Amino acid sequence: MSLLTVGSVAFDAIETPFGKTDKIIGGAGTYISIASSFFTKPVRVVAVVGDDFPKEYIKTLEDQGVDTEGLQIKENEKTFFWAGKYHNDMNSRDTLVTELNVLENFDPIVPASYQGSEYIMLGNLSPQVQSTVIERLTQKPKLIVMDTMNFWMDIAFDDLMKTISMVDLLSINDEEARQLSGEYSLRKAAKKIMAMGPKYLIIKKGEHGALLFHKDEVFSAPALPLEEVFDPTGAGDTFAGGFIGYLAKTDDISFENMKKAVIYGSALASFCVEKFGTERLLEITDADVQTRVKEFHKLTAFDTTL
Amino acid sequence: MSLLTVGSVAFDAIETPFGKTDKIIGGAGTYISIASSFFTKPVRVVAVVGDDFPKEYIKTLEDQGVDTEGLQIKENEKTFFWAGKYHNDMNSRDTLVTELNVLENFDPIVPASYQGSEYIMLGNLSPQVQSTVIERLTQKPKLIVMDTMNFWMDIAFDDLMKTISMVDLLSINDEEARQLSGEYSLRKAAKKIMAMGPKYLIIKKGEHGALLFHKDEVFSAPALPLEEVFDPTGAGDTFAGGFIGYLAKTDDISFENMKKAVIYGSALASFCVEKFGTERLLEITDADVQTRVKEFHKLTAFDTTL
Repeated sequence: MSLLTVGSVAFDAIETPFGKTDKIIGGAGTYISIASSFFTKPVRVVAVVGDDFPKEYIKTLEDQGVDTEGLQIKENEKTFFWAGKYHNDMNSRDTLVTELNVLENFDPIVPASYQGSEYIMLGNLSPQVQSTVIERLTQKPKLIVMDTMNFWMDIAFDDLMKTISMVDLLSINDEEARQLSGEYSLRKAAKKIMAMGPKYLIIKKGEHGALLFHKDEVFSAPALPLEEVFDPTGAGDTFAGGFIGYLAKTDDISFENMKKAVIYGSALASFCVEKFGTERLLEITDADVQTRVKEFHKLTAFDTTL
Repeated sequence: MSLLTVGSVAFDAIETPFGKTDKIIGGAGTYISIASSFFTKPVRVVAVVGDDFPKEYIKTLEDQGVDTEGLQIKENEKTFFWAGKYHNDMNSRDTLVTELNVLENFDPIVPASYQGSEYIMLGNLSPQVQSTVIERLTQKPKLIVMDTMNFWMDIAFDDLMKTISMVDLLSINDEEARQLSGEYSLRKAAKKIMAMGPKYLIIKKGEHGALLFHKDEVFSAPALPLEEVFDPTGAGDTFAGGFIGYLAKTDDISFENMKKAVIYGSALASFCVEKFGTERLLEITDADVQTRVKEFHKLTAFDTTL
């Protein structure tokens, strides 16, 4: 099934206890589209970069199965740049630099050939850009998934609430769920957030996995306990990309199938953190993904005979 | 199979955002023995209280299936008392009062009738008391499980390391695993801790569940996402009691069966936190426990066909 993603395509400079990078390719749109391309092709991308963005990397995305017709290249402008430094526990980070550049006036143009897309993944971007994409769709999709972050809760709350009310599934982390709902209990937070519009909610808990909510149902997915988290950048976006890619491939949005999609997303995220940036995602094969999904099963399955 | 537990039997005064209690019955030994009594009876208890401890509560334990022959009652002495206050997030607490009283000179006498016990649960107590119990056993048990806490790492490190080297399974929380191993990654921490002696390790993660390690195997159990955690006191001890009780009942210490034991322990712990102290544990039935174990399965199971 057809999948349209929107999100930043960016330069990142990352520092972790294991090392640091120069400007490498990152951005939610990049991670989402690579991750979802494991399941469905082509992945349609709406995004913007400057003319400093390497043509070879656009080729890399295309080789991976990404349709870049919706990737705008702005002459004489610069690509969005983010630099961050992770603390020793890898669970928190400081933003060192944010240069919006082309993102500042990003007008998310949806090419005519993208119309009719049935699965929509709105990566973390300003909620106003996210809602514009929805408004520009001429046909109602089967599923709209939205990722966002606390930054937008702080500076664009009304826009954010409007966009949240337009989507089917919201994906945020545990701290954000608590901030958005004002509830510490994630179960209570989920109820309040689903009352804001989305029928489904995913709460990402980093090294503790993720929770999927729908009505009174809950599914708890673990994270794979890794010896080393080398670079967490993009893990949440990779998770989202794997999740919606799997749903688009199977074209089944039952809760049971969403559980599997959460596991596929988690499996891809567990690869993402093993190297800097998108490096590991670009190495692995479908067989690697299947092997890891089996590891997730082994990690959680228990005999239920009494 | 026969189960011997040792642990504090205490008075607790607890304050949470939901309310506060006067002195109620608590202590690791209390929670462990009640939880394990759901699976195996009698549960043999080695513990000490003062003559201020209510006779009716000893009767309550006995009615639950606890053998109190090893419960020493010290005339003219007072029962161990702990008072604590939970923060709003319920994940951290301040200790307000610790009165060791009878625990100060606790000599853990193992009654002759307790000899031959095959499963041993050493609840959190001074590691010196825990190792004394092991040394007083005349027959080698099938499995010795030890719970401890950071307090002993700080004040009795050598004793602690000695006791850890004598047990088969250590149960601690994630912060303690990091402190004991000096490793942030729980997978690395587990390797280092198992090299200290125990063949198995359980890392408790509170609202994020628990991990069970053995050699290169890992099992991840979720916690049930609850609307409200009313009082977390005793949840870890209840988990440990349910875990070893289930193993003693089934007399099977394979890794597969330990996974189930972790789920049974988690199920009991999820009840424990619903009311103050042991109140909820004393209300529930075997059928309630089975129903909750099924909820855990529903929470984590996913279809593995590709």
